[in-house]
Amino acid sequence: MNQAAFAIHAAIHQARPDVVAAAHTHSIYGRAWSTLGRLLDPITQDACAFYDDHAVFEEYTGVVLDPAEGRNIAQTLGAGKAIILQNHGLLTVEQSVEAAIWWFIAMERSCQTELAARAAGDPRMIAPAEAQKTRDQVGSPMAGWFSFQPLWQKIVRQEPDLLH
Amino acid sequence: MNQAAFAIHAAIHQARPDVVAAAHTHSIYGRAWSTLGRLLDPITQDACAFYDDHAVFEEYTGVVLDPAEGRNIAQTLGAGKAIILQNHGLLTVEQSVEAAIWWFIAMERSCQTELAARAAGDPRMIAPAEAQKTRDQVGSPMAGWFSFQPLWQKIVRQEPDLLH
Amino acid sequence: MNQAAFAIHAAIHQARPDVVAAAHTHSIYGRAWSTLGRLLDPITQDACAFYDDHAVFEEYTGVVLDPAEGRNIAQTLGAGKAIILQNHGLLTVEQSVEAAIWWFIAMERSCQTELAARAAGDPRMIAPAEAQKTRDQVGSPMAGWFSFQPLWQKIVRQEPDLLH
Amino acid sequence: MNQAAFAIHAAIHQARPDVVAAAHTHSIYGRAWSTLGRLLDPITQDACAFYDDHAVFEEYTGVVLDPAEGRNIAQTLGAGKAIILQNHGLLTVEQSVEAAIWWFIAMERSCQTELAARAAGDPRMIAPAEAQKTRDQVGSPMAGWFSFQPLWQKIVRQEPDLLH
Repeated sequence: MNQAAFAIHAAIHQARPDVVAAAHTHSIYGRAWSTLGRLLDPITQDACAFYDDHAVFEEYTGVVLDPAEGRNIAQTLGAGKAIILQNHGLLTVEQSVEAAIWWFIAMERSCQTELAARAAGDPRMIAPAEAQKTRDQVGSPMAGWFSFQPLWQKIVRQEPDLLH
Repeated sequence: MNQAAFAIHAAIHQARPDVVAAAHTHSIYGRAWSTLGRLLDPITQDACAFYDDHAVFEEYTGVVLDPAEGRNIAQTLGAGKAIILQNHGLLTVEQSVEAAIWWFIAMERSCQTELAARAAGDPRMIAPAEAQKTRDQVGSPMAGWFSFQPLWQKIVRQEPDLLH
Repeated sequence: MNQAAFAIHAAIHQARPDVVAAAHTHSIYGRAWSTLGRLLDPITQDACAFYDDHAVFEEYTGVVLDPAEGRNIAQTLGAGKAIILQNHGLLTVEQSVEAAIWWFIAMERSCQTELAARAAGDPRMIAPAEAQKTRDQVGSPMAGWFSFQPLWQKIVRQEPDLLH
Repeated sequence: MNQAAFAIHAAIHQARPDVVAAAHTHSIYGRAWSTLGRLLDPITQDACAFYDDHAVFEEYTGVVLDPAEGRNIAQTLGAGKAIILQNHGLLTVEQSVEAAIWWFIAMERSCQTELAARAAGDPRMIAPAEAQKTRDQVGSPMAGWFSFQPLWQKIVRQEPDLLH
């Protein structure tokens, strides 16, 4: 069994009964962004899905094996849909598997977007009121589920055995 | 129905009877560039297709649902072939579906190019007279249609069912 | 007929009887690097293939249609294996089709490499004597031909119809 | 025979009887990072696999043909699992072919990650004690072998002829 996965996921499911799935990988742009130790900024419509709805877990102390650290992560996550594990990577949660995966993909792309923008210049922020409104528009559990559908249909078309 | 798509596309078609198709997605480099709130510079032959032929729509107020905002976007677009929707992404228009898609691809690549150049150094500009001349050479509706043909042929070869 | 291709390629073949093929596309990193108006630096073994063996053509005056401009490009190329057409893209030449294509791929990758290095820090140079020695080791017509073989074999395996 | 490969690999196998395989290619991000002449920093869990376990070989004197230079590289590698050949690329070693390849892939990704992070901002370091502990957790020969398995299974599924 993957102990680190259990330590993190178990603690999240205990703290958040509404969460059906948590997604976590060490994707390139998510882990690159995570080294900066800061929240994603509301610089695009898509990034607003995470506005005032994600956190940074700053303590990196090695592979997460201690249930206590899993609980700390779950506590920092709070009621949000995502957490940036500093020096580690992204983690997203949601009420459906589809939406948890979609938020992970969307967050990874938001990291790539902000890394590229900051390397080239000085991105402009969406104002708080508009960022919050946009989050409510594009960041709901249903919106996440819906956004994942085309990718799911493509996966099934390419690998029909996955359904059995 | 996709309300945001309707609000934007309907307003453009009303304001621009010459436009047959408008292309819009939240592509990575287009949305990254859009956060900088500035026009693409005439730094390559390909970017000149958009020289003095695109605009920046600076107001981001959430998902575009209000017909009035669609009209504002169409007004900012003016007679141009493209518009950068700040904090959102790119939108291109043309007299054919093929050319509208091609300008989108070409603009996305121009964003990637300028982001990479600005991250590494200080790109040199093509002088206004040459940029304008180049736009007339590579930026016509026919040039856009023509440039899309190899990609279209590849798509049809790979997915012949699309033709039926 | 592609007039721009003719204007450039014809002039090169006239000026350089040793050249069997010239490769030119508007690849992303080549055109991004070309906007900086500078030679590739000898910062990697692979980039040394172009050390003291390529030039920058600084004048961009629109799509190259005038035979006189093709001659200017050929003159700037001189005896080298490659030229950076500022605000435009890369062009490579060689005694075989295989090697001309390989130098194009190798140069595009060298542009990507130096763009990434310069965006993140300050690359160290290989000293002139070592850069020249390395160019002679990895930059010969035979080395270019040889380096292209695995890619050619892969292309033929994937698209056997290309051989007929 | 590839003389450069022999000069490097032979010297490593002589100096390190525990090494079963050495992996070396001129991958894009590895060679870009190598131009900066510095060690990878412990900025992610994955990069910690190389913490205090890799070195930089600073002398670039052309294609490695001289057995003496191969020995210098092996000496700089010491007891580590990887070496950054400045102005050249990455090289990784391990007790199994699988793990040597995995460390190469992991190191290339660590280079991409740190290049992206440094282009956009100022990455935070994992403290030495945690970096060392993490290396022991994720950087063992068995962990490298294990991490390669999914990729190996995918390769075999896609190209079953490789097994014969």
